[in-house]
Amino acid sequence: VTREARLDLARRQRLGMVEAVWGEHKSAPQIAAILRELAAAGELALVTRVGRSKARAVVRLLEQDPSAAVPSLRYVSEARALVAPEPPATEERFGRVAVLSGGSSDRGVAEEARLALACHGVASDLILDVGVAGLHRLLDQLEALRRVDVVIACAGMEGALPTVVAGLVPQPVIGVPVAVGYGVSAGGTAALHGMLSSCAPGLTVVNIGNGYGAAMAALRILRGGIPPATGLTDAGAEGRR
Amino acid sequence: VTREARLDLARRQRLGMVEAVWGEHKSAPQIAAILRELAAAGELALVTRVGRSKARAVVRLLEQDPSAAVPSLRYVSEARALVAPEPPATEERFGRVAVLSGGSSDRGVAEEARLALACHGVASDLILDVGVAGLHRLLDQLEALRRVDVVIACAGMEGALPTVVAGLVPQPVIGVPVAVGYGVSAGGTAALHGMLSSCAPGLTVVNIGNGYGAAMAALRILRGGIPPATGLTDAGAEGRR
Amino acid sequence: VTREARLDLARRQRLGMVEAVWGEHKSAPQIAAILRELAAAGELALVTRVGRSKARAVVRLLEQDPSAAVPSLRYVSEARALVAPEPPATEERFGRVAVLSGGSSDRGVAEEARLALACHGVASDLILDVGVAGLHRLLDQLEALRRVDVVIACAGMEGALPTVVAGLVPQPVIGVPVAVGYGVSAGGTAALHGMLSSCAPGLTVVNIGNGYGAAMAALRILRGGIPPATGLTDAGAEGRR
Amino acid sequence: VTREARLDLARRQRLGMVEAVWGEHKSAPQIAAILRELAAAGELALVTRVGRSKARAVVRLLEQDPSAAVPSLRYVSEARALVAPEPPATEERFGRVAVLSGGSSDRGVAEEARLALACHGVASDLILDVGVAGLHRLLDQLEALRRVDVVIACAGMEGALPTVVAGLVPQPVIGVPVAVGYGVSAGGTAALHGMLSSCAPGLTVVNIGNGYGAAMAALRILRGGIPPATGLTDAGAEGRR
Amino acid sequence: VTREARLDLARRQRLGMVEAVWGEHKSAPQIAAILRELAAAGELALVTRVGRSKARAVVRLLEQDPSAAVPSLRYVSEARALVAPEPPATEERFGRVAVLSGGSSDRGVAEEARLALACHGVASDLILDVGVAGLHRLLDQLEALRRVDVVIACAGMEGALPTVVAGLVPQPVIGVPVAVGYGVSAGGTAALHGMLSSCAPGLTVVNIGNGYGAAMAALRILRGGIPPATGLTDAGAEGRR
Amino acid sequence: VTREARLDLARRQRLGMVEAVWGEHKSAPQIAAILRELAAAGELALVTRVGRSKARAVVRLLEQDPSAAVPSLRYVSEARALVAPEPPATEERFGRVAVLSGGSSDRGVAEEARLALACHGVASDLILDVGVAGLHRLLDQLEALRRVDVVIACAGMEGALPTVVAGLVPQPVIGVPVAVGYGVSAGGTAALHGMLSSCAPGLTVVNIGNGYGAAMAALRILRGGIPPATGLTDAGAEGRR
Amino acid sequence: VTREARLDLARRQRLGMVEAVWGEHKSAPQIAAILRELAAAGELALVTRVGRSKARAVVRLLEQDPSAAVPSLRYVSEARALVAPEPPATEERFGRVAVLSGGSSDRGVAEEARLALACHGVASDLILDVGVAGLHRLLDQLEALRRVDVVIACAGMEGALPTVVAGLVPQPVIGVPVAVGYGVSAGGTAALHGMLSSCAPGLTVVNIGNGYGAAMAALRILRGGIPPATGLTDAGAEGRR
Amino acid sequence: VTREARLDLARRQRLGMVEAVWGEHKSAPQIAAILRELAAAGELALVTRVGRSKARAVVRLLEQDPSAAVPSLRYVSEARALVAPEPPATEERFGRVAVLSGGSSDRGVAEEARLALACHGVASDLILDVGVAGLHRLLDQLEALRRVDVVIACAGMEGALPTVVAGLVPQPVIGVPVAVGYGVSAGGTAALHGMLSSCAPGLTVVNIGNGYGAAMAALRILRGGIPPATGLTDAGAEGRR
Repeated sequence: VTREARLDLARRQRLGMVEAVWGEHKSAPQIAAILRELAAAGELALVTRVGRSKARAVVRLLEQDPSAAVPSLRYVSEARALVAPEPPATEERFGRVAVLSGGSSDRGVAEEARLALACHGVASDLILDVGVAGLHRLLDQLEALRRVDVVIACAGMEGALPTVVAGLVPQPVIGVPVAVGYGVSAGGTAALHGMLSSCAPGLTVVNIGNGYGAAMAALRILRGGIPPATGLTDAGAEGRR
Repeated sequence: VTREARLDLARRQRLGMVEAVWGEHKSAPQIAAILRELAAAGELALVTRVGRSKARAVVRLLEQDPSAAVPSLRYVSEARALVAPEPPATEERFGRVAVLSGGSSDRGVAEEARLALACHGVASDLILDVGVAGLHRLLDQLEALRRVDVVIACAGMEGALPTVVAGLVPQPVIGVPVAVGYGVSAGGTAALHGMLSSCAPGLTVVNIGNGYGAAMAALRILRGGIPPATGLTDAGAEGRR
Repeated sequence: VTREARLDLARRQRLGMVEAVWGEHKSAPQIAAILRELAAAGELALVTRVGRSKARAVVRLLEQDPSAAVPSLRYVSEARALVAPEPPATEERFGRVAVLSGGSSDRGVAEEARLALACHGVASDLILDVGVAGLHRLLDQLEALRRVDVVIACAGMEGALPTVVAGLVPQPVIGVPVAVGYGVSAGGTAALHGMLSSCAPGLTVVNIGNGYGAAMAALRILRGGIPPATGLTDAGAEGRR
Repeated sequence: VTREARLDLARRQRLGMVEAVWGEHKSAPQIAAILRELAAAGELALVTRVGRSKARAVVRLLEQDPSAAVPSLRYVSEARALVAPEPPATEERFGRVAVLSGGSSDRGVAEEARLALACHGVASDLILDVGVAGLHRLLDQLEALRRVDVVIACAGMEGALPTVVAGLVPQPVIGVPVAVGYGVSAGGTAALHGMLSSCAPGLTVVNIGNGYGAAMAALRILRGGIPPATGLTDAGAEGRR
Repeated sequence: VTREARLDLARRQRLGMVEAVWGEHKSAPQIAAILRELAAAGELALVTRVGRSKARAVVRLLEQDPSAAVPSLRYVSEARALVAPEPPATEERFGRVAVLSGGSSDRGVAEEARLALACHGVASDLILDVGVAGLHRLLDQLEALRRVDVVIACAGMEGALPTVVAGLVPQPVIGVPVAVGYGVSAGGTAALHGMLSSCAPGLTVVNIGNGYGAAMAALRILRGGIPPATGLTDAGAEGRR
Repeated sequence: VTREARLDLARRQRLGMVEAVWGEHKSAPQIAAILRELAAAGELALVTRVGRSKARAVVRLLEQDPSAAVPSLRYVSEARALVAPEPPATEERFGRVAVLSGGSSDRGVAEEARLALACHGVASDLILDVGVAGLHRLLDQLEALRRVDVVIACAGMEGALPTVVAGLVPQPVIGVPVAVGYGVSAGGTAALHGMLSSCAPGLTVVNIGNGYGAAMAALRILRGGIPPATGLTDAGAEGRR
Repeated sequence: VTREARLDLARRQRLGMVEAVWGEHKSAPQIAAILRELAAAGELALVTRVGRSKARAVVRLLEQDPSAAVPSLRYVSEARALVAPEPPATEERFGRVAVLSGGSSDRGVAEEARLALACHGVASDLILDVGVAGLHRLLDQLEALRRVDVVIACAGMEGALPTVVAGLVPQPVIGVPVAVGYGVSAGGTAALHGMLSSCAPGLTVVNIGNGYGAAMAALRILRGGIPPATGLTDAGAEGRR
Repeated sequence: VTREARLDLARRQRLGMVEAVWGEHKSAPQIAAILRELAAAGELALVTRVGRSKARAVVRLLEQDPSAAVPSLRYVSEARALVAPEPPATEERFGRVAVLSGGSSDRGVAEEARLALACHGVASDLILDVGVAGLHRLLDQLEALRRVDVVIACAGMEGALPTVVAGLVPQPVIGVPVAVGYGVSAGGTAALHGMLSSCAPGLTVVNIGNGYGAAMAALRILRGGIPPATGLTDAGAEGRR
């Protein structure tokens, strides 16, 4: 089973993070093999960017050999991710994250971020449909935003949401451009550039659609200089890319 | 004097617009020749994108031959434009335009738009420094915005200002991206794409830095289907490009 | 039902516009849920960029629960849009718009603009196949163009149609680049850049393929400073993106 | 004096940050006017991206009118910034930031970040010349890195430094692409894309050359949910863009 | 003297063309050396893309050594080219070319094309200021266009001129994009893409600003399958790049 | 039947060219309607960029209504085109064209060019697999190339073939970039830029994959200033785009 | 059978390399014809970039005519290539190559390189999952790397692997960017630019995904100035593109 | 003196290469300080991309403090580089490299490569003006090319030279794109893409204008697996970037 991935089990000790297995360019057999390896090592597995039909193919492959089962494997369709075993319950004491999305088309990326946080025991609030073309919807949420420790703001099209948020609250704000749009905004580059160009001070950005990365950045912030072993679930995995 | 430009004197009759002479890629002698031609034809001349030193060279060239003078030539430094003769006083009855700019770096483009409107007798208000990273500054101007007929919104960086404006007021909003920024926003493409991607309905856009074009679009709107000859100053010129 | 969209029912009061639900990156279940919400709120729903098979899936989903029906839902295939209920009859008194297209491949975008106008009671004329490689076809339509209040000109390839139109008539001209072309014009960027670079004064532009946006810009122009509540159908909706 | 900038004095209360005045596209007279306004308001002024000759012009302009002096104005040449008055001494209790740069060509951006931190009383360590083509230089600094709260990693060329750092330490890492390079890396886009594509989990990025922005992101992190008024120097300014 | 260029004197026999020496990236000493070599070989020299100050430096260098003079060297400022010796008189019997330009800013490229034709004895007409935003100016020239053998159409901005021309006349039309414009048309790419995307059948294109190349394409057409030695002046040179 | 295309039957008189109907973005019903219109008008129809399955759909649609038949419709699969009726036999007296392709992947574009020529009665030779990585294959064809009037050279990847050809023969050479390649050459832009940058004098270029356009350019050259009515088949059509 | 490819059988004599037939843009019938030609000529055939279903179609086509069989044809699925006949056993005496990949998603490109080497009798080691976000995995392989003659390093995402390798070992290092990534790294351009921008001295690069090209570069290095006929298997083929 | 560069003196031991100090984005004082440091350490210094006036400024700065002299410093103007002390004589026994350039504008990059080789004692031949538009010039050099161990081929414009060379000779060929060109070839991207897209097998590429990098790649090849200490001059330096 060691063929498909050179496991970096030392990583959890080093960084205290589950590194998601990036599923987009991996075949179903490759993913199944990695899941088995991680289950055998007792690690939590999070496989991102897995479409529904590929997820089904992985499950079928795993069922063919019950001797190497992956217990409690679940497909979280709104986040397009496979996770096994069930992550532990989230706890408020690690801090709290708000995950915003400009429109309902951005939701998949927001859910990937929330699932990645949950895999580390971190609670998050999802605040949908607060795009800047209808400002009052966002202003209505200001009180809620002031109560969290980190804001993750997902937006496609022109990507102005994180800019407006970072102009309103003093917390760390992580912008996640989303590949939702058409014409010049197709693919998410317009949103990415809008966020990077932001005139709001201190906004940082991750790659287009990288909900997992935004979650890990929030995790780094929540823990600060505290050793990663503290306040972490027992899960940990490796193999992204 | 007919060498440097094939005058389209019919254009003012056709469109009722002064088409600015675009000065950026023209030499001082080319500009001086065009100014003389327009003065001889009794047309108002507006030459845009002329830096201070080129403007001085044009004036010097014109002074060398007093027999072909260009009366009342003036360099409007904040708009980087030459104009001759003095445009007529603006009148409220043609309607009113608000010209917004996100920051003081965008001011040159906003002033080009205002000058082009003034050349057609149209009054405009300049509202500076209403960038979206400090929303309250824009919200303070909402009443003023509701009183105008057309809004021209100039912004560099991420260019979110027109989006937010178009989400707040029902009038026509014309976005002008400005080449103010660095890194991914250098050159104004990020602002342009942000405006084109806008989720605010009915925002239209002109080329980066095209204050003159935004003014002419506003003019088309103010006049509607009314014949262009009506309500126009006597100025008219040709030769852009 | 509030899950998929945070309705901005105040928007119709603010802007007087039906904001189309943008269907391209939404799943059939997401669209069905939004349609139900809007029907329950008594709002007109316009869902753009919906392919034929996704439209069928939406209809099937809605039929599964007759208790939450969406009355008079119709798929307008030439505009690739769902609309419910039937928009009111258009009226000339709101003004008249001409929608031009360079070739028959651009027709879908032109029809999206016309449908969006119709949702607001605005009549429009469709003038097809007036590309600039055969100028006489366009020149034949000059009289018709002079009678309208706003021109929407859709073009793919090199996108020169709006430039030529804006050089001939004084009305507001809104260019809509269309993603029709191959090689350097694939995706519509060449047409977009051609329109933005136009040497015709006062042409404005919307995003590639954004027929809805062009229609809303025309609506803003037709109404000018008049309060949006006047002369509007009762329809109004929210949820784009 | 209110002409050149609509001051957002409420911003310091809202975000607790000095927003740098962005000097690159402002003229010397514009900068001088803003400096006077801020001095009159008793605010700390930080003007970034000012070349040596423009800085001299600003100083000359200010000296012409001693009645409106800007006390303690200083040009920090290695950071290409003007600052007035002298920032307070930094204090360790706000936390500690390491600012890394891949090569000595990246130093200007690193110094801008350090100066912006110093304006808020935050101490930082500068670690130069730790590019990844000579890994041992970076590995030698691991212990130092483990003692700080936030890492800001500046790199041009291929921009791999933040990736390697984020794979080694668990703290928040903010990548700053630098416009140092030639051919495909000229302008900093290769470095930016390299950082955004990073396979190290939780790395976030700011715009190319945006040392100030990275510093403000670090400040947001250091303060967490704590009200911004706490632990801040009395400085505060406005006018960026 | 053989150091700076490996002369391809066989080329004139092979192709019957003077290949211009491309002056833009060559130093004045490099250009002077090549001019001497060509003069020594009795070949006509055409050096393109030479600014006025570099031209002066070349002349000064050549004057320093009268023993290796380049007779009849002339700087053609409107074409930004050096030529030596004086080309022969043009003759109608080789056919006739019309060189069009959209605006006076495009003139330099048009003049480069005309000079290159003249170096081969081919006559050409220059028709300026026939941009498509004022169609009647072009339509007025239709009769003149119908009398020539090849049309070279130079245009910046959106570059629509060659498209409209190729829709009106059946002769070969060669489009030359010009780097005149700003924003999305800066550098000439918008014009290039517009011409390549043209819906007018049979339009061909050369690189941005390549007036020389367009002239050589016209020359290939004028001669057809006829051996190049026929109907050529005695000039011939080498060394471009 | 006039709905789908505004026929430009005057075009054949004006330019003497069959303008291909561009099939890529048209639906099967749109193509079928245009074919019927052209057949009714007695015009030759050439529909390019039609995949096999769309071609079948068109044929099926046409068979459903025998009263409006399109006689002698044929699908030319190697050129991906529909043509009706059968073009006349080609004749040598109009001149001769060589169509080269660098590799067998480029063949489709070469065949489109040949079919378009054949529709105008022009004969052509196809010379395959003469890419520059094996120069002797091209050098073996030099004699054949010297006998034709125009060369059309199709190439993907780095697109160097037309450059090398234009350095060897004096005839007009038209480069057609082909969208064959991967990585940086995917889509054909590398080939296009290579051809436009060519250091061979007088090479002209058409859009990526535009075999039809190259053929029409060749036709313009073959006819020179001769009135288009001469030496043309009776075919003629309209509707591209 | 000579229709689909002009064989360059002299190439093996000239360069001593099997040039792979590039299968991506060729149809199954084209590939089958080339395979038959090469088998008839006794040449080894390597067809790259062939998906599983196209490979099956090729095999089916070949089986239809047993008189023109292609002996020992095999589909190497991990390299997405067809090869016939079986390559000879590899030999250490030609030197040794290490093929590295950053993650398991990059494996296909690595396997293409290994297969191309094997077709020339060259042995290689595959070292998977040594991405730079977990440096210790790469450092563990240093001893193995020091024993080989050439390193081929395949990486997607930010493509930093070859940079780090070239900073650690003195052998020739060939970087192969892989089209594995999303957002700004989709398509492999970020990896390509990262490798080209590398601050490690002497790293060279091939096109995105070009495993075959990297192998041929390694072969050129292994042989140095030695005549290609020496130490080569008898295989040799032609027809790429 | 340790301020401006963290010396990696271990690098020469590790890789056996002088890493050039990259002078383009360094100030004259930074370069002077590095030169002093390297002289003090007894290392050979090679500073690339230094214009003539910056070189003069460095020399002036060094002369101001004779106590810290840099012996034998020389400015090699044709390579735009500073070198100190004089490199040792080159020796044939390390192998031989041919450095080709397409035109005389490319010469600077070719000379940078030659100087970098000379710093390591490697001899090279410079072959100028062998662009592919006049093939016979290259074919005349075939015998010379067959005698060298590695070919470095520099080319701007369309960059086809390395492709043609790699199709003719079996040695390693390293392509160096040069930023010589205009329009689509300005900046060297067209040449870079042309080389990466090459259909000649086994061509590798370095960044645009990276003559130093090509030389170091050649050095890695010449040495193969041999320990770098062997056959090296005593020079060695650090600090690039």
